[in-house]
Amino acid sequence: MAPDTRLDEVLATLDEGLPRALDRLIEFVRIPSVSTDPAYAPEVRRAAGWLCDQLAALGFEASVRETAGHPVVIARSQPGAGRTLLYYGHYDVQPVDPIALWDRDPFDPAIEDTPAGQVIRGRGASDDKGQLMTLVEACRAWKSVHGTLPAGLTLIFEGEEESGSPNLAPFLRDNADELRASLALICDTGMYADGRPAITTQLRGLMGEEIVVRAASRDLHSGNFGGLAANPIQVLVNALAGIKDDTGRVTLPGFYDGVEELSNQLRADWEDLGFDASEFLSRVGLKDPIGERGRSGLEMVWNRPTFEINGIAGGYAGDGFKTVLPAEARAKVSCRLVGTQDPQAIRAALQVHVRAHVPADCTVEFHPHGSSPACHMDVSDPAFAAARAALCEEWGREAAFVGMGGSIPVAGDFQRMLGMDVMLIGFGRDDDRIHSPNEKYNVESFGKGARSWARILAALR
Amino acid sequence: MAPDTRLDEVLATLDEGLPRALDRLIEFVRIPSVSTDPAYAPEVRRAAGWLCDQLAALGFEASVRETAGHPVVIARSQPGAGRTLLYYGHYDVQPVDPIALWDRDPFDPAIEDTPAGQVIRGRGASDDKGQLMTLVEACRAWKSVHGTLPAGLTLIFEGEEESGSPNLAPFLRDNADELRASLALICDTGMYADGRPAITTQLRGLMGEEIVVRAASRDLHSGNFGGLAANPIQVLVNALAGIKDDTGRVTLPGFYDGVEELSNQLRADWEDLGFDASEFLSRVGLKDPIGERGRSGLEMVWNRPTFEINGIAGGYAGDGFKTVLPAEARAKVSCRLVGTQDPQAIRAALQVHVRAHVPADCTVEFHPHGSSPACHMDVSDPAFAAARAALCEEWGREAAFVGMGGSIPVAGDFQRMLGMDVMLIGFGRDDDRIHSPNEKYNVESFGKGARSWARILAALR
Repeated sequence: MAPDTRLDEVLATLDEGLPRALDRLIEFVRIPSVSTDPAYAPEVRRAAGWLCDQLAALGFEASVRETAGHPVVIARSQPGAGRTLLYYGHYDVQPVDPIALWDRDPFDPAIEDTPAGQVIRGRGASDDKGQLMTLVEACRAWKSVHGTLPAGLTLIFEGEEESGSPNLAPFLRDNADELRASLALICDTGMYADGRPAITTQLRGLMGEEIVVRAASRDLHSGNFGGLAANPIQVLVNALAGIKDDTGRVTLPGFYDGVEELSNQLRADWEDLGFDASEFLSRVGLKDPIGERGRSGLEMVWNRPTFEINGIAGGYAGDGFKTVLPAEARAKVSCRLVGTQDPQAIRAALQVHVRAHVPADCTVEFHPHGSSPACHMDVSDPAFAAARAALCEEWGREAAFVGMGGSIPVAGDFQRMLGMDVMLIGFGRDDDRIHSPNEKYNVESFGKGARSWARILAALR
Repeated sequence: MAPDTRLDEVLATLDEGLPRALDRLIEFVRIPSVSTDPAYAPEVRRAAGWLCDQLAALGFEASVRETAGHPVVIARSQPGAGRTLLYYGHYDVQPVDPIALWDRDPFDPAIEDTPAGQVIRGRGASDDKGQLMTLVEACRAWKSVHGTLPAGLTLIFEGEEESGSPNLAPFLRDNADELRASLALICDTGMYADGRPAITTQLRGLMGEEIVVRAASRDLHSGNFGGLAANPIQVLVNALAGIKDDTGRVTLPGFYDGVEELSNQLRADWEDLGFDASEFLSRVGLKDPIGERGRSGLEMVWNRPTFEINGIAGGYAGDGFKTVLPAEARAKVSCRLVGTQDPQAIRAALQVHVRAHVPADCTVEFHPHGSSPACHMDVSDPAFAAARAALCEEWGREAAFVGMGGSIPVAGDFQRMLGMDVMLIGFGRDDDRIHSPNEKYNVESFGKGARSWARILAALR
């Protein structure tokens, strides 16, 4: 290690400061920055302000920047001679429903002892507040040892990741010169398995759509109208049932255009990871992989596209019973995308399919929710080898190159709009329950995550 | 008219007392006696008490009688020598969702002027509080003129009609001797068309079922699990989509067992009614009858069975978007039944069908909600001709013998359990929006309904 990084001192400072770093994270998680629900807009803004204040206090030139939606926080360290880095995270969080299944107030986080060690429990503890703070804490320790922040570092923290990032691409376009760097670092992914660090080299894309079918001008009594009047729930159900066939394949015309088979190398690498789909599913009470026939478990979640119904509602769903023909029914559906699948073409095919099921008496409305193609990284950039070595030193195991079933649209935006390589490194665990009740982040992920960034910053000097 | 009925005086008393009768109805509608939602149980009981107090004040021997659920109100006049009558209504009401579509608090009723005359607006104004009070007001006027109530009259008011009447049949069985009469009168139906009175001679039955499909032990992130884990919404949607075919026929095996074709006489009578299905649907913003091909509109709603999805819920349905694979999804479905269709056989066929769509990784639960066969009246009882003549005198038009698409299970219970003929006469209108937002009852229905009962009571002496 180059002596001027003073890495050992930085790591020792991180270890010593961990309790206070946890206090800061808890303060951050306490802010209910739910970006998808307009009612929480003031809290989203409060989270941006909190983050900006933290960064300014560390010596970053930090500001809360307006967009057409929730703001972006930007922070810059002093310029440097070497490689410049752009670090991304998001400070917004998922909604908390179903709230009844939480064991504690999701926005009253605390450190809990578990058989697998201490965790921070709360909405956003892992996704992405705990993760994004790992680098902030690494910078704090660096500043404490060096008197200066790591040079050439720009941080960008988004407030709309959980809402499909509608305003991030325009922001990147408008601020491209300020944001462009040698390499982008994104901290919103996980470890491969307990204790094994990972660098994510491919991400699935996402196409989300809300479908609203309307029939009568008001809810009807099924005694008076049943058998005569169109039922929008039935229309919606009929439209959604045919989208996947009995073998798990999506039937929308052109859906598989751009889907690529795995390379032999990647297929072999993934087989070496020893993923056991049934064991993985058993953690959530399931056992049978239900995707396309003839695909391995990792292919299903990393390299095959999906169609899923994420929400459906219509008619009376409360206690008891109401023999109603509702005026409307709605569903939220999404596709995970791979290869070069075109989100807009798939959205169009979905709309054509649904319209074909809507009788003349009904209307259908579509509301888009997010749209991003899949993303593949160029691992020949030497930064990948350097980061892999740094992670290996911290965790004592080789970092795996893995895929990811989720979507991080900003990675593709950085590639396409800013022409940058992107490296996705994060410390989440499979059991973090992100997007679910009782989300948590391991204290080990937080502490060793910050140490990992200190090593990576030192290695990429 | 026999002079001892003093009918003219009773009718004049009703006309004079209408404003105070409306005040009483408004007071009654103010009680939110929603029987399907356990949270309203105290209000249901309060409505029973209110009704019992009204009847006791009129001189009925009235009591609130316990059941395993909401209570029944029973009231008896003095014995008489002639025909005995049992009058039925229900004091419970439907839920009010979607509350946002009401123009006023559903439980803060008021008289409103409309182009079609004055109406009482509020939940239950028509179904069934306004209707049941028509006879109560007729009795009040009778008492005022005669000094005594009409002899040989028993009133029974149920509090669980909108919940499928789970405890009514046991109550009738346990109190059969007390309740048995020459004829049952039920006031829970409508006029055929504006200004034309009707006696309902056939009712569809009902089979309701709630279906709950469960998959993972918690909600999952569709990025981490999508493509691999079972999605209970998709399972439910697949199961529900196939239950009706492209021609509107229900595909459950044995579903049409016991469905009878119309007699030629009834087919001709119904054709004479000049029902225009498209015009009927146009009142609720629709135009195309969507039932089985080749059936007339009145057949579809009065003499053909249906399968309807009354409610569906699963995953995230709030504002914005959540890429979740939910742990469970649920639907409430119901069938309207005709002829001698067996509700239990159809329930069993539905369960078999749904189970066949549930993969090994998922579970399904069924919760029954109501079960009653269809019901046909014997119109050869001379009381039908007498009531028809009385209605004609009040409304100036011949009363139609009609079918009804809704279910009034108590009619069948009275027939089977108490061995009584049943006569269904009510004054609701097609546009009363029962079970929907902005329910109303025409003041004319209320006033002339009470007058109609006075005439019928006089005619059936």
